[in-house]
Amino acid sequence: MERRKFLKGAALGAAGTALAAPAVAQGAKTMTIVSTWPRDFPGLGVSAQRLADRITELSEGAIQTEYFAAGERVGALDVFDEVASGNSQAYIGADYYWTGKHPALAYFTAVPFGMTFAEINAWCLYGEGRALWDEVQDEFGLYGLPAGNTGTQAGGWFNKEIESADDLKGLKMRIPGLGGQVLSKLGASTVSLPGGQIYENLVSGSIEATEWVGPYNDYFMKFYEAAKFYYTGGMHEPGAQLSLTSNKSWWSGLSDTERAVITAAALEENANSYYEATALNGEYLNKLQEEQGVEVKSFNEDVWDAMGEAAAEVFEETAAHSDLAARVNDSAQAAMREYGRGLALFEGQLVANRNRILGIE
Amino acid sequence: MERRKFLKGAALGAAGTALAAPAVAQGAKTMTIVSTWPRDFPGLGVSAQRLADRITELSEGAIQTEYFAAGERVGALDVFDEVASGNSQAYIGADYYWTGKHPALAYFTAVPFGMTFAEINAWCLYGEGRALWDEVQDEFGLYGLPAGNTGTQAGGWFNKEIESADDLKGLKMRIPGLGGQVLSKLGASTVSLPGGQIYENLVSGSIEATEWVGPYNDYFMKFYEAAKFYYTGGMHEPGAQLSLTSNKSWWSGLSDTERAVITAAALEENANSYYEATALNGEYLNKLQEEQGVEVKSFNEDVWDAMGEAAAEVFEETAAHSDLAARVNDSAQAAMREYGRGLALFEGQLVANRNRILGIE
Repeated sequence: MERRKFLKGAALGAAGTALAAPAVAQGAKTMTIVSTWPRDFPGLGVSAQRLADRITELSEGAIQTEYFAAGERVGALDVFDEVASGNSQAYIGADYYWTGKHPALAYFTAVPFGMTFAEINAWCLYGEGRALWDEVQDEFGLYGLPAGNTGTQAGGWFNKEIESADDLKGLKMRIPGLGGQVLSKLGASTVSLPGGQIYENLVSGSIEATEWVGPYNDYFMKFYEAAKFYYTGGMHEPGAQLSLTSNKSWWSGLSDTERAVITAAALEENANSYYEATALNGEYLNKLQEEQGVEVKSFNEDVWDAMGEAAAEVFEETAAHSDLAARVNDSAQAAMREYGRGLALFEGQLVANRNRILGIE
Repeated sequence: MERRKFLKGAALGAAGTALAAPAVAQGAKTMTIVSTWPRDFPGLGVSAQRLADRITELSEGAIQTEYFAAGERVGALDVFDEVASGNSQAYIGADYYWTGKHPALAYFTAVPFGMTFAEINAWCLYGEGRALWDEVQDEFGLYGLPAGNTGTQAGGWFNKEIESADDLKGLKMRIPGLGGQVLSKLGASTVSLPGGQIYENLVSGSIEATEWVGPYNDYFMKFYEAAKFYYTGGMHEPGAQLSLTSNKSWWSGLSDTERAVITAAALEENANSYYEATALNGEYLNKLQEEQGVEVKSFNEDVWDAMGEAAAEVFEETAAHSDLAARVNDSAQAAMREYGRGLALFEGQLVANRNRILGIE
């Protein structure tokens, strides 16, 4: 997943500009939200719009949200600067789009071999993650809340089977971020195309493979027309977290109730988006297999091990950026091991035995 | 976990009765919440109190919640009738306490070899679970929302190792509900003691084993003083869901905004309680091992298989109760297989390989 420059060039949409504010209740506060997703985009876009509406609903109109999809007010990747500058009050997107501003931002969305949904929320809400996220975002005058999660993303679509790390050498694949860096170390030629350009590049042969999100989101992209091997759980985004990030000085000026309403709405949507993906991924994986004849494959251990070694190098390079980046990496790695052990011994053992006994595979 | 009769005999607490309503804002609505948990009980009780406070906070006082812990207004297990009758507006508890009223209620908390946190929420919020839960609760004039989740509970505390299903024969164990029925079929002598009586019975030898919740909750119960073998993920409660269940006629009379506020607060706490358990279980599992010398064990496949066969019989008996019970069982089993397959192929494969490579075990 990455929406880099997606619809960046699109004209301002019908929703208009900040000047076209809707009629608001007496004394109501306007919260302009800019997003990295196209309007009505299945999954991610719909979830962001639902969150914007929910804030107005829960506040009984005291906070009037104005939602601008990618390109309607600013380009998808420009929402960070738009909110940091105070032109808009908040963005909905994935913080790892802006690792160029600070590489530690990746840890609050997803890093290779990183945290699942349960783990990243435990860290960001009940662990050291909250204070570290504050510290990174403080450099830009921002304050983030978890506001969506895709669950573990698919390894991707390939036009050939990947049976060893050698099969990745020279492979032209669309995979952005730190996950792309991992595959580059293994000899792949990675690119970072926006979602709207992937299909045409895959069909034309300009790329031979791509990752996107998971079965539900991927189904609508029709990648199966050009790449019939679909690899399940990948290493690159174990539980990609989206954020509702506010301008910090605006956030600080809100009342306690207003902050509580926005927090509750964000955390409700954060969980709901994950439940929705859980409900729909199973159904759409069936559709991909039964309707479209997709071959569902899993990477073998040799491939996983090679990716694991490459990821270790990527983390060293990321931590070398700054003291703060090193502290974020250290905290995330330690928390993941502690939470991950508990989950493996309890939920993991139950699921493994349940699935074995019931034939769920 | 089960709080049957826990503190049932306790005197009315300082929080008083319904007559002692707090000063309320002009036109504010009072929502009396009765709970199955003792006041300030770590984990479950604290979470329920946090939810009650949050509803008042999000509504800016328009909904004034009054929270009564177990025994403060009615006994823990009497909250169902209290809310069905309209004496109080809502309860927080675990619906499977009232399987005597309808056995299908178990599916909305936890059943053996059943759904995890992600799965039960996908089913109850984005699958057929919502309509089925409505159908069951309609028989009693109730409306439930997910409002807490313990994650996968521990297999339990034993004073000997369990190396085969034979070791369960004649074992005196505290394990309530359908999980208890499974172990009874394997020859165990199961009892359903309230939380406050488990420790003394374990120390005196009246029981030889018990289950409770998970590392964080179990740590404070000090069971390790009498039973040093702690079994990780058990079959009996894969992701126990707690509910905020309202009197339906009261719920129907609320405004859209009031219903939205209560729903958002419940779903926020539902997820937060699971993240909190995820964060703390890892830490307290370490404490149990390192500070208390607990031996952490896992059931072997023979034991799991025997429990699986017994559980299949329990489900047949439950479904035989009524057409509705059969439909709930069928829907839950089918949804779990569809969601479970997607989770296994994506999140499960990532976690298995990540943990293997990083040595998380």
